[in-house]
Amino acid sequence: MKPQYLWLALATFTISFNAQAQHQYPNTPPEVSPMPMKPEMTEIWEPEVPVVTPAKKLGDSPSDAIVLFDGSNLDQWVSQNDPTQPAPWKIVDNDHMEVVPGSGFIQTKMKFGDCQLHIEFSAPDKVESDGQGRGNSGVFFQKRYELQILDSFNNRTYSNGQAASIYKDHAPLVNAMRGPLEWNTYDVVYTAPRFKADGRLDAPARITVFHNGVLVQNNVTINGLTLYTGLHHYPEAHGDDVITLQDHGNKTQFRNIWVRKL
Amino acid sequence: MKPQYLWLALATFTISFNAQAQHQYPNTPPEVSPMPMKPEMTEIWEPEVPVVTPAKKLGDSPSDAIVLFDGSNLDQWVSQNDPTQPAPWKIVDNDHMEVVPGSGFIQTKMKFGDCQLHIEFSAPDKVESDGQGRGNSGVFFQKRYELQILDSFNNRTYSNGQAASIYKDHAPLVNAMRGPLEWNTYDVVYTAPRFKADGRLDAPARITVFHNGVLVQNNVTINGLTLYTGLHHYPEAHGDDVITLQDHGNKTQFRNIWVRKL
Amino acid sequence: MKPQYLWLALATFTISFNAQAQHQYPNTPPEVSPMPMKPEMTEIWEPEVPVVTPAKKLGDSPSDAIVLFDGSNLDQWVSQNDPTQPAPWKIVDNDHMEVVPGSGFIQTKMKFGDCQLHIEFSAPDKVESDGQGRGNSGVFFQKRYELQILDSFNNRTYSNGQAASIYKDHAPLVNAMRGPLEWNTYDVVYTAPRFKADGRLDAPARITVFHNGVLVQNNVTINGLTLYTGLHHYPEAHGDDVITLQDHGNKTQFRNIWVRKL
Amino acid sequence: MKPQYLWLALATFTISFNAQAQHQYPNTPPEVSPMPMKPEMTEIWEPEVPVVTPAKKLGDSPSDAIVLFDGSNLDQWVSQNDPTQPAPWKIVDNDHMEVVPGSGFIQTKMKFGDCQLHIEFSAPDKVESDGQGRGNSGVFFQKRYELQILDSFNNRTYSNGQAASIYKDHAPLVNAMRGPLEWNTYDVVYTAPRFKADGRLDAPARITVFHNGVLVQNNVTINGLTLYTGLHHYPEAHGDDVITLQDHGNKTQFRNIWVRKL
Repeated sequence: MKPQYLWLALATFTISFNAQAQHQYPNTPPEVSPMPMKPEMTEIWEPEVPVVTPAKKLGDSPSDAIVLFDGSNLDQWVSQNDPTQPAPWKIVDNDHMEVVPGSGFIQTKMKFGDCQLHIEFSAPDKVESDGQGRGNSGVFFQKRYELQILDSFNNRTYSNGQAASIYKDHAPLVNAMRGPLEWNTYDVVYTAPRFKADGRLDAPARITVFHNGVLVQNNVTINGLTLYTGLHHYPEAHGDDVITLQDHGNKTQFRNIWVRKL
Repeated sequence: MKPQYLWLALATFTISFNAQAQHQYPNTPPEVSPMPMKPEMTEIWEPEVPVVTPAKKLGDSPSDAIVLFDGSNLDQWVSQNDPTQPAPWKIVDNDHMEVVPGSGFIQTKMKFGDCQLHIEFSAPDKVESDGQGRGNSGVFFQKRYELQILDSFNNRTYSNGQAASIYKDHAPLVNAMRGPLEWNTYDVVYTAPRFKADGRLDAPARITVFHNGVLVQNNVTINGLTLYTGLHHYPEAHGDDVITLQDHGNKTQFRNIWVRKL
Repeated sequence: MKPQYLWLALATFTISFNAQAQHQYPNTPPEVSPMPMKPEMTEIWEPEVPVVTPAKKLGDSPSDAIVLFDGSNLDQWVSQNDPTQPAPWKIVDNDHMEVVPGSGFIQTKMKFGDCQLHIEFSAPDKVESDGQGRGNSGVFFQKRYELQILDSFNNRTYSNGQAASIYKDHAPLVNAMRGPLEWNTYDVVYTAPRFKADGRLDAPARITVFHNGVLVQNNVTINGLTLYTGLHHYPEAHGDDVITLQDHGNKTQFRNIWVRKL
Repeated sequence: MKPQYLWLALATFTISFNAQAQHQYPNTPPEVSPMPMKPEMTEIWEPEVPVVTPAKKLGDSPSDAIVLFDGSNLDQWVSQNDPTQPAPWKIVDNDHMEVVPGSGFIQTKMKFGDCQLHIEFSAPDKVESDGQGRGNSGVFFQKRYELQILDSFNNRTYSNGQAASIYKDHAPLVNAMRGPLEWNTYDVVYTAPRFKADGRLDAPARITVFHNGVLVQNNVTINGLTLYTGLHHYPEAHGDDVITLQDHGNKTQFRNIWVRKL
């Protein structure tokens, strides 16, 4: 076939097809390249996307999640003070766990890097103290970067230290805290920091957080190790590490914890 | 109390508090600067974080959301073919809306830029056709950038065209689609593209999507206007614009739609 | 023409063309989409790229630059203390300018946002004092964000305060300082911070710097207003603003200053 | 002095010191934290910044560079067709090298990832052909990502294929090409793509390019392997790799090539 006929055929095919697609993509602009493309050229078939069965209801885990706590036991957790020992917190009603003040942090047996985390928590049933002293706990990603837990319901403290803050780094966008007898959820997308082969920081960690379904951290950069005192920085390169829950002396409660590696 | 005593009190308090905090932040590294700081120096109190009352249950809207559809009426929507006309889709059981095939896209009356969107959808109850022909619809942000809706339950098509894809741009990370008689949710964080004063693109749009609670788009860059045919690009600068729902000829159903401006 | 022949013709054409291109792009992988493309489809012809005549020699300005100082006069500069007054620094040998200690900062008459800046400077001919006291000056972008100038030749100070640091924010990657009788160059790509319509920070400033042709800042994020004391932050939204040169009490010299708006 | 007086003294000192610093940092805003800091607290002294001796004149290499070509020999290069063989291009006047058309690409013996590259090139002395046929060559980073070389002086071609384009990905911001008897420089900051342990792309490559001292690529994202035909993508994970110079059938000339690992 002579080249000119080939082009004619292509042009015809394209024009009629576009006419059909017209009402579906009303803003289609003129082509930017000198030769028209065809719709199939921008279809990508491989790799095929893996199937995940989502949870039937909020809080339950999708099929590819690692369940860290479902109310029945603390088998996925150990004491941070002595990782050879069981997690020293208590299980209540085969439903949730509660911090045992003074017993220390607990941490997962498994290590994680980039992940999606779902966790539910409740402030202590009895409201005591105020500011940082009320219902204080926290989730540490890779043992180092804290998503703050606090009873921030009618409890003013510094903005970068209230519930859903990245502690002393980023205040949450809004305060979506429920009352002390209600359960709260955090749904988190965590991106671990990257380090070069020689140990220098390559890319800082980032985090997105929903608090009770409301966006409170929008892909913010985590500026370094969580510090009670001092300037943000990354003192050392590290790989995947445990997720930690903080004992800050308050009887914070937890349930429905699951994580998906990304 | 006179100022000098105030400082004394603070110093004392800080020292004792640090002692107490020791076991709480076990990885605290040596100071990086030549003069030690104090904990209060990294507290940021202003601005105060605004309070938002979260929804009581999944799907309901938080207190600062704009409700685009709650099952009762289509007052927030108009026809895209003729925005002076009401949205031509039907309401079913005072619960959800359904595409009327051939009636055209519908769009919001209000315009949006950066936003958090919650939307629920269901594939048509009767499973018909396959590939792109089964349960096809879509959500367009700013009238231009499509988050694909499709019945992707046991329905193979090109990966960058299945449910929860950014159409012809990004396949979803996983396929978390529910069966055709079940409701699906999309929870989206959308960041609009930025343009310079002279019209050039300054930063492309980005999007994060959860499908039934499972992360499927992780802050990906949207490479341009959604096109059925051709290369990704941003043909024109624009500001806030309507959210559009696509009539692709299938009786897709929608409910519980709300948006929060970011 | 029947569809199957059309495809055959296309396939043949594509294969032979690829054979020709083989030695030029040896790593060409298999197509990712189901229909082969053609080379012309990824050619973008519009808009045409504007021509700029580069300088004949290092330091001179390309044809689209705004010359801020060429040795002859200070017409592009005013006093920062009183912008209605001429710049109070002196011109030497119709070749360079020199800080008049105590006379105050000088600033451009024009305002800039994103820009490429070329500037040459020399430490005072007489080496005096040490640390921050030796040959201290600085270039402030948008009147707020300082690229440090210091005589850092055999002169230790804090790393984030030496020549080519973003003052108190980022140390340079290396110290490429020349001796005090030699001229230094900074070649800078500066990206201004973006603010939302309501005044919130949208994207922080970024900067790339070459010091005497050596990369010393690699697209780093500027964390806020340059502060002598306190934590980095962006206290206010602002638009384009003047470029400032600092009088820090030392007789720093400058020549060949030009800027291109980006 | 007793502690309480110390704090008092410090407070006083801070106030007076700020007064002194006033004219140096005129925009200093109020403190954002409840306890004033001191200037030393934001000084970072470690690690000390390494010293690099810059070149005496443009084109020469700084002290930490790897010289890939200085006019004397091709010892750092081999044939791409057969890396066990010497580079088949010729050296002219102990000053520069010239492509031997048909002999094939040449590549470095060493492999590189992130780097700063300086390279000088000249179009063939005799102007022949036009468009992509005139003075075509290219620099491939990691053997895969091409910074285009072409005689783009008065020679229109597609914008994303002219000199200083990232071939078929990004047109240059401006055309800063010199005439065919003059030498051109490219100064490049190249950031390699990152891949996850399982081979997925983690972050695409990025590049900044100055052409004859004029910014032409401003930290753009490289969207994938350079392809003559087809859509951008990253088909495989890879580590450091050779830098390649292209034989496209034209007698392009090169001199002064050096690289610094970043």
